[in-house]
This record gives sequence, structure tokens and C-alpha cells, in this order.
Amino acid sequence: MKLSERAKTIQASPIRKLMPLANRAKEKGIKIYHLNIGQPDIETPQEMLNVYKNYHEKVLAYGPSQGLEIYRRNLVKYYKRHNIEIGEDDIIVTTAGSEAIIFAMMVTCNTGDEIIIPEPFYTNYNGFATMAGVKIVPLTTYAETGFALPENEKIESLITAKTKAIMICNPGNPTGAVYSRQDLERIANIAEKHNLFVISDEVYREFVYDGLTHTSILEFPELENLAIMVDSISKRYSACGARIGCLISKNRELMNAALKFAQARLCPPTIDQLAANAAIDIEEEYFKKILREYDKRRNIVFDELQKIEGVVCIKPKGAFYIIAKLPIEDADDFAAWMLTDFSVDNETVMFAPAQGFYATPDIGKNEIRIAYILNENDLRKAMSIFREGLKKYRG
Amino acid sequence: MKLSERAKTIQASPIRKLMPLANRAKEKGIKIYHLNIGQPDIETPQEMLNVYKNYHEKVLAYGPSQGLEIYRRNLVKYYKRHNIEIGEDDIIVTTAGSEAIIFAMMVTCNTGDEIIIPEPFYTNYNGFATMAGVKIVPLTTYAETGFALPENEKIESLITAKTKAIMICNPGNPTGAVYSRQDLERIANIAEKHNLFVISDEVYREFVYDGLTHTSILEFPELENLAIMVDSISKRYSACGARIGCLISKNRELMNAALKFAQARLCPPTIDQLAANAAIDIEEEYFKKILREYDKRRNIVFDELQKIEGVVCIKPKGAFYIIAKLPIEDADDFAAWMLTDFSVDNETVMFAPAQGFYATPDIGKNEIRIAYILNENDLRKAMSIFREGLKKYRG
Repeated sequence: MKLSERAKTIQASPIRKLMPLANRAKEKGIKIYHLNIGQPDIETPQEMLNVYKNYHEKVLAYGPSQGLEIYRRNLVKYYKRHNIEIGEDDIIVTTAGSEAIIFAMMVTCNTGDEIIIPEPFYTNYNGFATMAGVKIVPLTTYAETGFALPENEKIESLITAKTKAIMICNPGNPTGAVYSRQDLERIANIAEKHNLFVISDEVYREFVYDGLTHTSILEFPELENLAIMVDSISKRYSACGARIGCLISKNRELMNAALKFAQARLCPPTIDQLAANAAIDIEEEYFKKILREYDKRRNIVFDELQKIEGVVCIKPKGAFYIIAKLPIEDADDFAAWMLTDFSVDNETVMFAPAQGFYATPDIGKNEIRIAYILNENDLRKAMSIFREGLKKYRG
Repeated sequence: MKLSERAKTIQASPIRKLMPLANRAKEKGIKIYHLNIGQPDIETPQEMLNVYKNYHEKVLAYGPSQGLEIYRRNLVKYYKRHNIEIGEDDIIVTTAGSEAIIFAMMVTCNTGDEIIIPEPFYTNYNGFATMAGVKIVPLTTYAETGFALPENEKIESLITAKTKAIMICNPGNPTGAVYSRQDLERIANIAEKHNLFVISDEVYREFVYDGLTHTSILEFPELENLAIMVDSISKRYSACGARIGCLISKNRELMNAALKFAQARLCPPTIDQLAANAAIDIEEEYFKKILREYDKRRNIVFDELQKIEGVVCIKPKGAFYIIAKLPIEDADDFAAWMLTDFSVDNETVMFAPAQGFYATPDIGKNEIRIAYILNENDLRKAMSIFREGLKKYRG
């Protein structure tokens, strides 16, 4: 029996597909610095970990499909602090941001419908689009301009009768771009004019540098019925393994439909939601400290990349990724080679080839994404090994 | 902007849709016996709960997309005890059985393809089918025959060029039917003859009564490339809130494709997997004790239903549900009325109208599903209130 078309066409994760090579390197005793995946080394807040330790129910039961009420009520408070005014019924708690994206695509698009997404974009949007039968229409942005949002004419030229939504990731994974209020106003205007949904992935909200402030898509009252926000606690609290996210919209009809999708899968994990709930009142100081740490790492990676001749990149303004254009042909091959053929004192570096973050064929082939999620020492060491590796690979 | 077709057509969960009425009743001070949902009152094993208490990592990190290796390795042992011979690479750990079903449908079916499923079936298959764009072709079975598998000719008459799989739930939710080895051989023969996948939902494996033994679809070597098993720990260990399940198949190509879907969503929850892992070596005696408890409950519910004139049902052989045909027109209306208009000493009963468990229009309207998941005393009380309610509703 043949598999389905989507089974044949779904993208292998460029973040994870090199793992077998990495495992083989590890078996040979080689230490790998993982810059390929957004798994921070920051400690998960003790407030969250305590919830697991202190769980005392005798039956680990289902929660409501919409998410635990206490958690949704507290999320309202969290968002209020971020200038986002919503009610608890505007929220569906999801199994991480991933499920929120799937629900958003499913609820807005029929099979064959289109979503416009600035590329390079978070590569797993491809997998979710394949699952939902959605065609991603890429809006290309460029390393040379810091992946700035293209002008309105360019965006509008991509709109067809099948376009249902514009989707953004702000702050951007993998670009590190942060859209200004003016950028978002442009998107809002286009969405209103053409009656399109705006799906905004804001999981890196807390990670903006250089004194910038983050603007949410939910801050535009005119988008009340069109704005859909996707969120996750994975990066915010360094709790990737908890798998807690949420879908937020003030469009009542849309949320009613999304709830039916949510009911089919019953509920997100129960104790993990309680842990997420315990993080709600974490103080501003916690984030400031983490931000200082990431800022330092950002500067290290950027400075190290700047030193390498032929590398093109712009200092990211948000999240914890940087896209670098390398003076090579095939970053896929280079990334694999670093794992199979190169090491310095039995250490090497893993990063994500960036082509999988583009939907336009044949672009991004010489680009990579680096996640700056290691501590200063490890990061310096990793970047030094990277520079050595690139030199040897080229020469 | 209009929502998608699937957003408009996805079924509201018949198990959960009456929750607003239940909440209103609770606000009025009425106690509700929940027989509507398969949330057991059995205590989650201490071995599992201890894992949460003793978790000591500082960073709650992503796990592998395929699931934690130690857990998959131990699952192999668990299945071996159940006569199921698989390797750890035949397993993808999923976020509960729900995600395993979605992956199974996505990987086998294109939009518009068909899956034959004996009805009544677990109602949420409808939601997953809507998400995957799959058409469920119902194979009607009847309360009067204990929901026995129809004869081959009947099954084969439903096969079209679009049929990709036969899906079964064994032991059956909501039917309580347990397919014999002979039943499964028939399904296997038909699948081989017509080159169809068999998706087998076996989450109630441990719950079979009257000395019957459970047979898995994975016990048929001739189905090596066609058998797909869906599993979950939710019922097995009364750990519905952990959201841990798995997808199992020996079809390598299929599992490679399923892994790409799994990579898109990164991983299932980490600590919950560790908790599931801790349950692997739970002794046979644990299940025997629970089975005795459910057996008692089964007898109570069945006996109480037998006493009511005009009720048709057959004693279930597995799982912990019973479908009862009632001497009324509209079980939906009756179920709602029990919450809004009826109580005995400020107590009432909630159960699931069964029509949503059928795909054929207009059948099952006078049927309900009762989950016998309460202790003896509560169950007796609930059934007494149920009988009173039915009497008053009819008269």
C-alpha cells in the first residue's frame, strides 16, 4: 500500500535531520556544541519545577479541552502586563506552540488555500502546512537588510483568491528581525484591505534587544476579528519539554471552531499546565537577567562571524538566532562534514543549514542558522571551532 | 473573513459538549455523577507520581521527536509481555493516542481518501478525520449482537478505489466489544486481499473480562507492512492527564514518514514520558486488581440497566463503556434535561448521547454511552438517579 502524498512530501526537519550523524560522532567520543536547536541552557524557573515536586493529586486526570481555567485566568494577567487586553475565553491552551499553529491553519484554510509568510521562516511551518494541506507562499526577505519587511506592493502582489492569511514570526526565528509598530500597522492595513487573517507567532516576545519594545498583533483593535496569536512557554521560561502553548483570538466564531479541534484531542498535559501557571508571576528581573545573558551571547556570535571573511550577517534584534550567509556553495554539505570529518581536540559544532527555512527553491543554500543558546565560554569555543572548520572546509 | 470548511463542519464532542449545562447545574449546587467521560477514578500508580516528585534536572528540555530512547526501549519489553514482538525503532512516542491517530490518518490518506470504521466508534475519530480531510465510511454494528463484526461480504462491499485503511478499536470504545483472533484474521485477510492498512486502536488492551485474552493487530506476521497500532497510557495507568501515547508499525517507510510529522511538532512532553517509563514494570497484580474492580462496576451498570423496561444492551466484554438503547426518541435532549431539569436530593447524572459515535445519519439517536468509571457506591447511586430520571422524562 502506498503512503499518502503528504507522507511523501513532508519536509525532514533541517534542525533535526543531521541528528544521526551527530549521534555517530558522539559514539566516536566527539563532543558536539549544539547550535542547531533552540534548546536554551537557561535553568527552568524553580517556581515551575516545584509544581512537579509538589503535585499531590492521586489521579492524574484530564483537564478541560480549552485548558485549565486557573491558568487561562492568570494568562490574562500576564498578557495585560504586555499591553495585550484579552479575556480568558479568548485563549485555548495548546500542546506547545506547534499545536496552536496547526489549529490556526486548520481553522482558517481549506486544503489548497494559501498563507503568505516572510521567508526565511521557522522551518516547521512547512510540516504543519503539509499536514493542513496549506500552500505557503513565501515573501522573500534578505540578510543584507536585516530581513526587513518588504514594501506593501511586494506583499500585495502575492495575494490571490486563495490567500487566507499572512503569517509572521515576531521576533523572528530564524531571522532575529523584530517588526516595529509601523511594520505591523502595514500588515494590519493590508490584512484589513484584503480581508485576510494575520497569524502572529510571538513565542520570543521577551527576547528583544537594544532597548526595543515588542508589539503584539493583538494590540490593533481594527484586527479584532482577523488577528490570531500563537504563543508558547518553551523559550520564555526555558521549558521546552513542558509542551505548553496557546492560541489566542478575539474572533469568537473562530475560537468556537478551534475549541472543537481541541476537544477532539481532549486536553494538553495537566501537570505541565500547572507548572506553566506557576511561572505567571515571575518578576521582570528574571527576564532582564536572561536578556542580558542572551545579549552577551548575541554579541559574541555576531563579532565572531564578523571576523570571518566572506560571511554576511546583520546583528539580530530579537529571539536567539542568527542567519549567516557563508562563502561556500552548500551549507547542508558543510554542516554534515563538520559532524563526520572535522573536529578540534575531539570537539565539533552542529548548526542548522538554512535552506529548509526557505520555501523558494534554491535560495538559502549557502546560509546557516546559529542558535546562540550556550554559555559564553562554550559559545566562544564553538565559534572558534566553527571558524577553523569553515577554513579547512573551504581550503 | 470566512473560516475554513473543516472549521464549520468539525463535530462538537458529544462527550464534552454538554459541559456548559453541567457547569450551570454545579453552580446551582447540584452534584453530578460523571458517566460521560472515560476519566477513571483509579489512582495513578505511585511509581509514576514519584517521577514528578523526584525530577531533578535544572532545564526542562526537549526530548527526541521519536520519544525518549529509554522509554521506547522499555516499551519493547512491555509489548513482549503481551505477545507483541517489535523493536524500539518501530515506535514513535506521541502526545497521547490522539496524536498517534492523526499521524496514522495523515500518513496513509490523501484528502478525500476513505477509512472504513465499524460504528459506533470513538467519536473523536470524526474530529481527526476532519483535520486530515479523510472520509470515514461507517460499517454499522448493532447493540443486539454485542456489536459483532459484520460478515466479510458486508465489509468488502464498502471498499472503493479511495479506501486506504480499515480502522478498529479493540477492545471497543464505546461498544465494549472485544474482537477474537478469528475476527482479526478476517480483517487481516480482507486487508491483505485489498491491500489496505489496518489501524488498530488498542488503548484498552488490559481491560477484557470473562477470562478473554486480547489479540493485537501486530500479532499477524502477514500484516507486517499494513498494520499500524495506536496506543496510550491514559487508561492503562489511569494517567489521562499525562498525554502519552504511541504509534507502532513495522512498515519502515511509513514510520520514516511519520517521524517527519513528529519532527515538525518537536517532541511529546518530557517529564510525562519519564513517568510513563516508570510504569513499565508494574506487576500483573496491579491490573488484576483493577480489572476486578471494573468487572464489578460492569455488572452493576449492566444489572441496573437490565432492570429498566425497554432498555436494550448487551454485557460489554472489554473497555469500560456500555452502549444502551433507551425507550425514548432523543438521547441528546434527555441528557441535557437530566442536567437542566432533574435531580434527586440535589444530585444528577451526566452521560454521553451516542449519536455522535455514529457516522451514519439518524442512527443511534436513542442510544447513550455510559462510562462505568465510578466506585461501587457512586455507581449504584448514579444508576438509581438515572432510572428515576428516565422514568420522569418518559412520563
